[in-house]
Amino acid sequence: MHSGGVLNIFGKLLILLSLFLLAPIPFSLYYHDGMIATFLLSSLVGAGLGGLLILLFLPEKDLGYRDGFAIVVLSWLGLALLGALPYAFSGQMGSFADCFFESMSGFTTTGSTILSEIEVLPPSVLFWRSLTHWLGGMGIIVLSLAILPLLGVGGMQLYQAEMPGPTKDRLAPRIEDTAKILWSVYLLITLILILLLMLGGVGFFDAVCHSFATLATGGFSTHTASVGYFKSAYVETVIIVFMFLAGTNFALHYRLFSGKYRTYLKNEEFRLYFKLTFFAIFLIVLANMRYGVYDSFADNFRAASFQVVSILTTTGFGTADFDLWPPVCKVILISLMVIGGCAGSTGGGIKVVRFLLFFKYARLQLRNLVHPKAVGAIKLGKLKVPQEVMVAILGFFALYIAFFMIATLLVTAMGVDIVTGATAVIATLNNIGPGLNLVGPTANFGHLPAAAKILLSFCMLAGRLELYTVAVLLTPDFWAMARKPVWRRFLPAAKAAG
Amino acid sequence: MHSGGVLNIFGKLLILLSLFLLAPIPFSLYYHDGMIATFLLSSLVGAGLGGLLILLFLPEKDLGYRDGFAIVVLSWLGLALLGALPYAFSGQMGSFADCFFESMSGFTTTGSTILSEIEVLPPSVLFWRSLTHWLGGMGIIVLSLAILPLLGVGGMQLYQAEMPGPTKDRLAPRIEDTAKILWSVYLLITLILILLLMLGGVGFFDAVCHSFATLATGGFSTHTASVGYFKSAYVETVIIVFMFLAGTNFALHYRLFSGKYRTYLKNEEFRLYFKLTFFAIFLIVLANMRYGVYDSFADNFRAASFQVVSILTTTGFGTADFDLWPPVCKVILISLMVIGGCAGSTGGGIKVVRFLLFFKYARLQLRNLVHPKAVGAIKLGKLKVPQEVMVAILGFFALYIAFFMIATLLVTAMGVDIVTGATAVIATLNNIGPGLNLVGPTANFGHLPAAAKILLSFCMLAGRLELYTVAVLLTPDFWAMARKPVWRRFLPAAKAAG
Repeated sequence: MHSGGVLNIFGKLLILLSLFLLAPIPFSLYYHDGMIATFLLSSLVGAGLGGLLILLFLPEKDLGYRDGFAIVVLSWLGLALLGALPYAFSGQMGSFADCFFESMSGFTTTGSTILSEIEVLPPSVLFWRSLTHWLGGMGIIVLSLAILPLLGVGGMQLYQAEMPGPTKDRLAPRIEDTAKILWSVYLLITLILILLLMLGGVGFFDAVCHSFATLATGGFSTHTASVGYFKSAYVETVIIVFMFLAGTNFALHYRLFSGKYRTYLKNEEFRLYFKLTFFAIFLIVLANMRYGVYDSFADNFRAASFQVVSILTTTGFGTADFDLWPPVCKVILISLMVIGGCAGSTGGGIKVVRFLLFFKYARLQLRNLVHPKAVGAIKLGKLKVPQEVMVAILGFFALYIAFFMIATLLVTAMGVDIVTGATAVIATLNNIGPGLNLVGPTANFGHLPAAAKILLSFCMLAGRLELYTVAVLLTPDFWAMARKPVWRRFLPAAKAAG
Repeated sequence: MHSGGVLNIFGKLLILLSLFLLAPIPFSLYYHDGMIATFLLSSLVGAGLGGLLILLFLPEKDLGYRDGFAIVVLSWLGLALLGALPYAFSGQMGSFADCFFESMSGFTTTGSTILSEIEVLPPSVLFWRSLTHWLGGMGIIVLSLAILPLLGVGGMQLYQAEMPGPTKDRLAPRIEDTAKILWSVYLLITLILILLLMLGGVGFFDAVCHSFATLATGGFSTHTASVGYFKSAYVETVIIVFMFLAGTNFALHYRLFSGKYRTYLKNEEFRLYFKLTFFAIFLIVLANMRYGVYDSFADNFRAASFQVVSILTTTGFGTADFDLWPPVCKVILISLMVIGGCAGSTGGGIKVVRFLLFFKYARLQLRNLVHPKAVGAIKLGKLKVPQEVMVAILGFFALYIAFFMIATLLVTAMGVDIVTGATAVIATLNNIGPGLNLVGPTANFGHLPAAAKILLSFCMLAGRLELYTVAVLLTPDFWAMARKPVWRRFLPAAKAAG
């Protein structure tokens, strides 16, 4: 492993984040919430550490597969740690485990919180919470559309073809080019949403924070009542539409902006995502009607639509306490949690395309049992899915089951009840936000033991990085090849400079 | 499809079962429970229907793949219907949905019951319940080791090599030979268990019924308190050992009887099954100790050992109410439910070997991410697992998830709560018996709506026949090829005779 090169890049990312740590200061000045020193100090720590790493380690050019994994995991972990500093320095958030949980929940666009009262926090800290979502969302789009496909992670190779680029709709030769294009789209959609929310009467601060959380499918709100606070059908409808867009492959949005209007309809994953949304809303409206949960059809439809899109896209915003809905609705919502958004979106979960291919695979198997001599191939749209991609997707399900079982076992071993424990793991592993029971939509994660918070933070990270990326680092193979220990590379930059 | 040939074989099976329907009559005579007419009538119905089918349809020689699937599903469904007649005629068991549920639960060796009081039933009816287990267990051994491998179902091809036969430990050329060998082993172990239980003071009737349920990993008891009724450490220990043996591949037992003493240790699936049992017992003893569930270590160890083996082998006997254990124990038990016994045993669930290969697959994937150019193969013992077998096993997991999600959705849609609904599906789909909450170890399935009972009976059938066998019949492909409709084949036997 090129440990030096990895740490050099990590240092640069820390410096970049330390610049973003200055962004809440204008809000602190405006609201006089006394958090300027908190953010300045956090930024300084980040810049100091980052600078030190850059000084100590030279950049390296020929970084390999394993370096890629190390950079991705190290960055997310390091940014979550640095991002937890303002929470810790502000003294508003209990133990460091709590701060780390909240920060990881932000950067992984999960949206699970340890806070029971949101409004008591200083506005600049609330802004930072939302900003971590938005930055995490940026990271995820580039990761899933430009970096993971190159690393061959869990079937994401399929998306090499989807990646936008400046020439002829093909892959930009350099990750930086792809990133710039995607980020422009992301920024543009964010600005449109801020504008639309403000047109609906939402204040600038709330509009920005909720737009960040929506685009990142994060779920942090500036209000304890989440989006329900606004009590506005317009705001909810706008947010439903933009959550849905945020759960869509961003390569498709890019294509739309370059004039290809039929790009969504041509995408098989998007079609299933669309149908799934409507089908789930239909089922929940029906069940809520049968059990008489809502007095009017309009209330029922509004709450069901919002919750289905919020959960399927793994945003986790709330307008209703779905823990009070009939059991069948909860089963539908848990299923949606596991499915998640589209690949290449900011949404979490297993991803619609993986389920699509998984069941195409099972169908092919059944067909082969009836016609043993027939040879079939799995297609996605017009693309024939290569064997190694199928293999990676199936392995992904094995990893998912393993992570889910082990994490649920550990959380319940800490004394948490089954439904709370299992749905807390589902909510974090799929980067959703709320679970059921004691971590339900009106509850929070604050009461869990510190060890459970650390474990669930790890689940958020693993889920966000498509499991494989984290799991690879847990294999002996990964470390067996790191022959040159990190201290052998220590100080080459200083030597070269001297 | 050779519909005539299929129905001819089905007719023969009905006649065979109608002979077994006479077996409870001696018990009815001995206990004077007045059920002689009930069993005579049921037997007559079976013999009449079977005879009619044999008269109407000629046997056919060249039966194909699809005929195999049709025979297997039709037989299990038909036998469960015929086996429900004594319950219905006896007037002791409520609606026909209840009788069908109880009969299907017997033949699929599930052991879920709709009865709240067991002892009130006439002894001959209790004997019939246990006998359905034992016959179902016989069917399953032959199905999993001789029939399904030929049909290529869900990775069972792997077991073609495992199948015992009269010459040189290789596959007997005909299914009948294999069946005879396996049944001798099954009968021999049953007789040993009856003897051991009687030596421990258990009466002949109880010894026979519990031996049938143990060997079949069924779980029906002749007492409401299940095996806990005997309050005997000796009886529990003997049953633990024999449940464990019943959850083991019967091909291994056959090899032991032919003098190969190291056969168990050489089998990779068995080694994992063995380790898993001890690891689960260790964890549950630890958790129960921490939460102070039992006063003495001996009680804790005894209850944990019994419950782990009972659940992992999918027997479902009870000596303790594990619904009162701490949440982590319930998560462990649910995991064991899903894993199930070894392939080629009477146990249900996904099977240890499928999990073994599934995770070997994920590990190979992770290794390939680190060494992208390396080519790896998955081995089971010394055997290299062919690609098509891996593909079938992975497809099995997709089917399993689909069955589980849809069934849980439907059951909760009938108004059942989440934990009850989900564990009722797990308990039936994996052929275990009890679930948690309202279908927990001290409860029963009697209070569920009739539609849920039919659905759960279908889950038992699907689980028992390794999902694929049932799923194939649900595909349009299967029926598309059945060009000659069944009525075109009607009456050829009568014609040929005349």
